[in-house]
Amino acid sequence: MKALVYNGPCDVQVKDMPDATIEKATDVLVRITTTNICGSDLHMYEGRTPMETGRILGHENLGEVIAVGKAVDRVKVGDMVCLPFNIGCGFCENCEQGLTGFCLTCNPGSAGAAYGFAGMGPYSGGQAELLRVPYGDFNCLVLPKDAKEKENDYVMLSDIFPTGYHATELAQMKAGDSVVIYGAGPVGLMAATSAFLKGASRVFVVDSHKDRLALAEKIGAIAIDDTEGNGVEQIKELTGGQGADCGCECVGYQCCDKHGKEVPNLTMNNLVEAVKPTGGIGVVGVFLPEDPGAKDALAKEGKLAFDFGQFWFKGQKIGTGQANVKAYNRRLAKVIEAGKAKPSMIISHELPLAQAPEAYKQFDQRAEGWTKVILKPGQ
Amino acid sequence: MKALVYNGPCDVQVKDMPDATIEKATDVLVRITTTNICGSDLHMYEGRTPMETGRILGHENLGEVIAVGKAVDRVKVGDMVCLPFNIGCGFCENCEQGLTGFCLTCNPGSAGAAYGFAGMGPYSGGQAELLRVPYGDFNCLVLPKDAKEKENDYVMLSDIFPTGYHATELAQMKAGDSVVIYGAGPVGLMAATSAFLKGASRVFVVDSHKDRLALAEKIGAIAIDDTEGNGVEQIKELTGGQGADCGCECVGYQCCDKHGKEVPNLTMNNLVEAVKPTGGIGVVGVFLPEDPGAKDALAKEGKLAFDFGQFWFKGQKIGTGQANVKAYNRRLAKVIEAGKAKPSMIISHELPLAQAPEAYKQFDQRAEGWTKVILKPGQ
Amino acid sequence: MKALVYNGPCDVQVKDMPDATIEKATDVLVRITTTNICGSDLHMYEGRTPMETGRILGHENLGEVIAVGKAVDRVKVGDMVCLPFNIGCGFCENCEQGLTGFCLTCNPGSAGAAYGFAGMGPYSGGQAELLRVPYGDFNCLVLPKDAKEKENDYVMLSDIFPTGYHATELAQMKAGDSVVIYGAGPVGLMAATSAFLKGASRVFVVDSHKDRLALAEKIGAIAIDDTEGNGVEQIKELTGGQGADCGCECVGYQCCDKHGKEVPNLTMNNLVEAVKPTGGIGVVGVFLPEDPGAKDALAKEGKLAFDFGQFWFKGQKIGTGQANVKAYNRRLAKVIEAGKAKPSMIISHELPLAQAPEAYKQFDQRAEGWTKVILKPGQ
Amino acid sequence: MKALVYNGPCDVQVKDMPDATIEKATDVLVRITTTNICGSDLHMYEGRTPMETGRILGHENLGEVIAVGKAVDRVKVGDMVCLPFNIGCGFCENCEQGLTGFCLTCNPGSAGAAYGFAGMGPYSGGQAELLRVPYGDFNCLVLPKDAKEKENDYVMLSDIFPTGYHATELAQMKAGDSVVIYGAGPVGLMAATSAFLKGASRVFVVDSHKDRLALAEKIGAIAIDDTEGNGVEQIKELTGGQGADCGCECVGYQCCDKHGKEVPNLTMNNLVEAVKPTGGIGVVGVFLPEDPGAKDALAKEGKLAFDFGQFWFKGQKIGTGQANVKAYNRRLAKVIEAGKAKPSMIISHELPLAQAPEAYKQFDQRAEGWTKVILKPGQ
Repeated sequence: MKALVYNGPCDVQVKDMPDATIEKATDVLVRITTTNICGSDLHMYEGRTPMETGRILGHENLGEVIAVGKAVDRVKVGDMVCLPFNIGCGFCENCEQGLTGFCLTCNPGSAGAAYGFAGMGPYSGGQAELLRVPYGDFNCLVLPKDAKEKENDYVMLSDIFPTGYHATELAQMKAGDSVVIYGAGPVGLMAATSAFLKGASRVFVVDSHKDRLALAEKIGAIAIDDTEGNGVEQIKELTGGQGADCGCECVGYQCCDKHGKEVPNLTMNNLVEAVKPTGGIGVVGVFLPEDPGAKDALAKEGKLAFDFGQFWFKGQKIGTGQANVKAYNRRLAKVIEAGKAKPSMIISHELPLAQAPEAYKQFDQRAEGWTKVILKPGQ
Repeated sequence: MKALVYNGPCDVQVKDMPDATIEKATDVLVRITTTNICGSDLHMYEGRTPMETGRILGHENLGEVIAVGKAVDRVKVGDMVCLPFNIGCGFCENCEQGLTGFCLTCNPGSAGAAYGFAGMGPYSGGQAELLRVPYGDFNCLVLPKDAKEKENDYVMLSDIFPTGYHATELAQMKAGDSVVIYGAGPVGLMAATSAFLKGASRVFVVDSHKDRLALAEKIGAIAIDDTEGNGVEQIKELTGGQGADCGCECVGYQCCDKHGKEVPNLTMNNLVEAVKPTGGIGVVGVFLPEDPGAKDALAKEGKLAFDFGQFWFKGQKIGTGQANVKAYNRRLAKVIEAGKAKPSMIISHELPLAQAPEAYKQFDQRAEGWTKVILKPGQ
Repeated sequence: MKALVYNGPCDVQVKDMPDATIEKATDVLVRITTTNICGSDLHMYEGRTPMETGRILGHENLGEVIAVGKAVDRVKVGDMVCLPFNIGCGFCENCEQGLTGFCLTCNPGSAGAAYGFAGMGPYSGGQAELLRVPYGDFNCLVLPKDAKEKENDYVMLSDIFPTGYHATELAQMKAGDSVVIYGAGPVGLMAATSAFLKGASRVFVVDSHKDRLALAEKIGAIAIDDTEGNGVEQIKELTGGQGADCGCECVGYQCCDKHGKEVPNLTMNNLVEAVKPTGGIGVVGVFLPEDPGAKDALAKEGKLAFDFGQFWFKGQKIGTGQANVKAYNRRLAKVIEAGKAKPSMIISHELPLAQAPEAYKQFDQRAEGWTKVILKPGQ
Repeated sequence: MKALVYNGPCDVQVKDMPDATIEKATDVLVRITTTNICGSDLHMYEGRTPMETGRILGHENLGEVIAVGKAVDRVKVGDMVCLPFNIGCGFCENCEQGLTGFCLTCNPGSAGAAYGFAGMGPYSGGQAELLRVPYGDFNCLVLPKDAKEKENDYVMLSDIFPTGYHATELAQMKAGDSVVIYGAGPVGLMAATSAFLKGASRVFVVDSHKDRLALAEKIGAIAIDDTEGNGVEQIKELTGGQGADCGCECVGYQCCDKHGKEVPNLTMNNLVEAVKPTGGIGVVGVFLPEDPGAKDALAKEGKLAFDFGQFWFKGQKIGTGQANVKAYNRRLAKVIEAGKAKPSMIISHELPLAQAPEAYKQFDQRAEGWTKVILKPGQ
């Protein structure tokens, strides 16, 4: 099968790889029809992770079931399915509580597994023609009848829509709240979409990329241009000096100041300031336990100079971590099916798999207008 | 009236002060019969806060109502009452949600007021013969019939028992959980008491003071002696390498390493390591937005070099801030009344008000055996 | 002042009454500018409650503050305020937990007080030129700057918008859920509005009045015409045989079957059938502990022949009771201010106070098109 | 293998049956070492359910794994396991939310499956030497090292301890609450144990059997003897006229009045009266959608003459249904392992499987002292 393989820093290639197959009785085999490039793929692409060369990337996957193992009871050949990026067993202490992003079975010695991801187990990614799905009955979201028609919406259930939603859940957002979201990338825009879905009164989206801020406005958010580094002041002014009711971090450790310099603690400290006392903050942007490639001494060991005193004094709360996709994907599918959300609106490029290497290059350079790339392996 | 007045760093004195009185129609006047010295009083005593000289200290207060304002409907003269250390109005956006530690009325321009506390409004403390209680109907917990008999238990409802309980709530602790608590001081011991009350299976209490660890064992906890700085390893070994289900921070910014050096980020980073992935951490130890007296450059501006990468990767949650005492004091009073908890067990010294200056001195030096001092102004 | 007085069954009159005044230091006096007639006013109007003659009706009130008591700190003369129909003290065991619909102070011997309501304390209603508001700082919702412009929206915060929202909270509704709502009257329509606000995927509204069903469709709901008594079947068919994810009861004890006969258990048993196993049901329609005027023997003593076996077998949950308006009115005000909801859309008639008697008559007859009447005492 | 078979009303027999075996790759085969008789077994025994003759009873099972299917990854031969009485698939819409008592896969067309239970699927029970466990990785709770030593405690995790705990969860009980529990049978006693575990201040247990009330007192509860039918008055007097903070129903549809007559609505209406306004009520006693054998006309069709008006006026909440055992069994196992609960205290009889028929007979007659029977198939 054709697949996108990681050869090393800034070097990916579409080449022939052995076909994915059913390996265990609980497996499901999927012919991928849509697979996305995610911002976190770029961490691997840039060589800032211990990703092994020769592995297939891709953790945002959707396709058609073409074979099922003998112990698969629910999923049928022909089903259109969307796969959560995290792989769960369904029966460990964490999965049974719905914490499928922290499965204790699928990546022994750690907590949490994923397709084509550094440090998340040996699973191949789905930027390929075929994908093996372990514990298929547990991990496949079987899509409604309109699956093919809305394929570009449903594929967002693999990661970024649930991840954006998770940010609002971690932030303990309720109807009527004002919400400040740092980051107008795909996840930040999905967080804004989720906030509106849940009845936010006002959503402030902070970024310095004009094209992304325009998208934020398109979904009804108030765009806060942080180019001059005064985003916090703008939010305070718009909230009577108090700050927003809650906040979402959708940037991650590679946040930059107004001079374009990586300042890992910038977003978090801004959020502490921009959110009111007692407010919640949901952090879904990726932070790393260690980052040997960082310039900053603290950052190398995964530390931030965090405004803990201010955070404590304000009595705020922080929730973090990967989204447990299965906690949300079924209900968000109903939202898409009912036409209440259209996450495909963030797609900027729809390309055949063969053009993936060029897409990685452009996306990694944050090229103007490259918001979200989806790949169509079958085409 | 006699009252304990702050003259400046390490200088407090009992002297005659004007009697507290009813100033507004919603006030209640209380003759204090028991008032405690709290660890956070020492922050002021040591001169590490902007506390004004001439003010009366004391925020853990209990006594008898001797007068009520004209608009007071519930509280009656003769009632024995325990006063939450935080003063709320009862009608602002935060109070109406139960966030009485962050009242927007009583300390304009900030969030949260308290008796005799730096930066928490102009209110006099209760280490005195009389105390004025604003919004008396809202702020007085009227005690049951056995109030005098169990006065030394009920006085702990003013702060440390609800604060310890709050730590377990912020940590999202549930029955059956194992809990790691940093700090075997009064708050840590109350957190341990609360954890057992809520059905914890195992409670680990980490400290390096032998006398405090002995108290922890007395209430059924597993004492973890961190003298050698290997507390985290001990907990990991006792939890199959996973870490405890959740954790409580009951130390604050003045935590010290095994050489006795103040290392402000030590407890928090240990907790991130000692708690399992997805676990919650409740932080009730005090951290300051700024600490000009600190030696560490980050600490001066209230920052910690926090293991944010590890925290995020493990998908943990942190809740912080002062306890909203009113959220818990009524139900904890029922627990004391039913004989299910006896917080007075932590009292090491019961003294007349006149001996308060000496008590401050000993307590500040962490003198062996000075766990908790209560003062009896009337005696 | 002019006020609408209850003279006895089906007999109300606008006449001169003594002016409402400040009676206690915590009172606020409001000049009413908008006041609504509520479906529950009809229970009193019809004489099916122990309402005393000579009392002023009206519990959905909005107006301008014209005087405040000496102990009022927050509310100012000139403020535009909306008053929750339930009157709370702010400091009893229930109010301090946000259960302001069950205040233990304002209606001694019972739980819960209201303006102009049978069995809810001695308070005069607001279908009058002036209204005395007890515990004014606690009970007044001070409105935003656009209060006058959106007065007909904000007045719905006194009761029906929070009550409809409460139904969805009691039903434990979450984003993505399908919801079945019995009753397309004002409360049912507000429940539907709330469900959409919180991200419902589909909302089914069941009624047999065509005009009300048309309004339900106008806000995006799926109208289920129950004229033939087959509403449950329709819902089952639309939900793959499972039933809706959760349900709201917005009818009350006076529900009728397809022949127009009052059958008190009809709605509840239909809901148990129309909601899926494990689903929640929120009941905000009024049910009475006794109803001597009922024809049914069980109903006389407030009992229903309830499908408890089916309810238990399906593992459903029921939450009931008056909305604690203050738990929601502040956040719903933000929603109105931001233009995310427009509850005034349900108003069918806007009349001067003088026409209140005629309005009661028409509304009580469920006259075609009389959905919601608001009165303007000043005009 | 030897097994206890249902021959018809009041007729069970131990006889030779074909050995249970591994039928699917996800199955686990368990050699039963302890299996209990449950009060709900008596519903079948008495012939008041559509239980098929020839089936093996028993849904409270514990034993040793002797074989595993090829797709079983977690459970190993030799593991001591306790089986939740409800059988879940782990991947349906309900199981993935932890609602394993309402699995949509294991009993198609209904919601919820169990071993040896009428209407809960074709699964054989465990009052036998061997038991087939479907979806073994999901359904087996692997016990700690002290499994054999505390086998009689751990077996209660199959049903009654989680069921009692569930009652307190459905009742929304929190630390400090007073709780009223109807029924001092095994489930009621486990509810009382759970209430204390979670920090209840006072637990009232209502029954009219002296031996059971004595057990309730032994675990610290206040026994309320309802022989004269004045249990509600006793509770009101002990709670200052208010009623308890919350309540648990642990009796079921076969509740009797003081004359020993079955009065199905008695317990529920008493609970509505004995619980304070706004309080929660958890109902885990079994109620049936239809009960053709009942004498009462309403009861035949599963209806109760329920005090809905009072229930609504008091703003109470009811949660119902089978316990989702997996939601609690892991954490309760930790509680047992830590020695914080000893559910085996309720066992009155420990017998070999051969004596099961006699035990059914005695237990069904509510013979004095027959509180809980456990069977040891291997002995």
